[in-house]
Amino acid sequence: MTHPISERTTVRRYSHRAAYDRATIDAILDEGVVCHVGLLTDQGYPLVIPLAYGRQGDVIYLHGSAASRLFRGARTPGREICVCVTLVDGLVVARSVYNTDINYRSVVLIGEATEVTDLNEKRQCLDALVDCIIPGRTADARGPTVKELKATMLLRLPIREASAKIRRGWPEDNEEDYELPIWAGVTPIRTLFEPPRPDPRLTEGHCVPWYLTPYTRPGTTR
Amino acid sequence: MTHPISERTTVRRYSHRAAYDRATIDAILDEGVVCHVGLLTDQGYPLVIPLAYGRQGDVIYLHGSAASRLFRGARTPGREICVCVTLVDGLVVARSVYNTDINYRSVVLIGEATEVTDLNEKRQCLDALVDCIIPGRTADARGPTVKELKATMLLRLPIREASAKIRRGWPEDNEEDYELPIWAGVTPIRTLFEPPRPDPRLTEGHCVPWYLTPYTRPGTTR
Repeated sequence: MTHPISERTTVRRYSHRAAYDRATIDAILDEGVVCHVGLLTDQGYPLVIPLAYGRQGDVIYLHGSAASRLFRGARTPGREICVCVTLVDGLVVARSVYNTDINYRSVVLIGEATEVTDLNEKRQCLDALVDCIIPGRTADARGPTVKELKATMLLRLPIREASAKIRRGWPEDNEEDYELPIWAGVTPIRTLFEPPRPDPRLTEGHCVPWYLTPYTRPGTTR
Repeated sequence: MTHPISERTTVRRYSHRAAYDRATIDAILDEGVVCHVGLLTDQGYPLVIPLAYGRQGDVIYLHGSAASRLFRGARTPGREICVCVTLVDGLVVARSVYNTDINYRSVVLIGEATEVTDLNEKRQCLDALVDCIIPGRTADARGPTVKELKATMLLRLPIREASAKIRRGWPEDNEEDYELPIWAGVTPIRTLFEPPRPDPRLTEGHCVPWYLTPYTRPGTTR
């Protein structure tokens, strides 16, 4: 899928690490669980908050409390937000301090978020979001009541201006440093989802759902 | 250690999850590897980028390329940045879609970053930063040359306005939902640092350094 490259999402530093194709961008978005949202506050400084999110097609859903000042600020027309998803894959242990690095895959999205207000649409979007975090869960869990839907603020951010940046592989040492008697390599980092632990208040006779045994993210079989 | 609570870093949503003591804040900052930095761009929108960082005492160090437009923008006097560190600890599988949640620990810092320009100070700060990411590494790795120091932009952000937010424990379901025949619990999430892999260009006879066998973050023995 082609994807327009905007001036703002063009990666300038280490541009050989940039990717703009939707398959790469979507794979990173789908593997992540938490994003970091940058919002411009009324006071003029940027605030960054961690949020759960979910991608469905060309859209990212973000949800928060309807009473949240931040969320109200984020949907202000003309005020753009930035969403960043980062997967940390390893420590790059180079021969020099200068070339010490981190392997990662990240996506940056910029755009104007709009609020989902129709209750039926909100229900669908909220289900999509929960199924992004725990695929299969909404078939089992109690669905939201109208009161709960009204207490939820749901934002929709189109994936229009986006770029990915990826650093993978071995240290990139200066050529003369390869002769130094210094160990170098990579310590891989993985996100481990442990076996589920039952709620102490769980009544007897419930099986652990299939989507938790084991729980996996799309793409984590790398 | 007491820590002033500013208007801007006061947690308003789920305020029972907030913490303002430096021990809690420092523990989260020290366990994290990557932070998300929010910067106000010249064009007036906020940009969020992932960066390596290190804490030393009351200061966070951030480093990037001296040629980076973003970094040059971040040190603009009067222009504040926001740094967020998030540790994701688990999926909270509640009985209802509405109460589905994520266990996490996060810190938000706001402040004006200043550039470290003195080369000796820069060398010390860069060492501190690398030793935060890989404790012990600077004793082995080749130190930075003057040229490398000049090519590095190092920013110092004081830990003055900061707050932590923590969600831990079991689902918090509505009282009437506990009777529903729905499994509930927590899927714990852990960051796994795998055994180090040697650089294919490594010459023979080098031992894997002690700080990588195993590599641990402060606080990860929980």
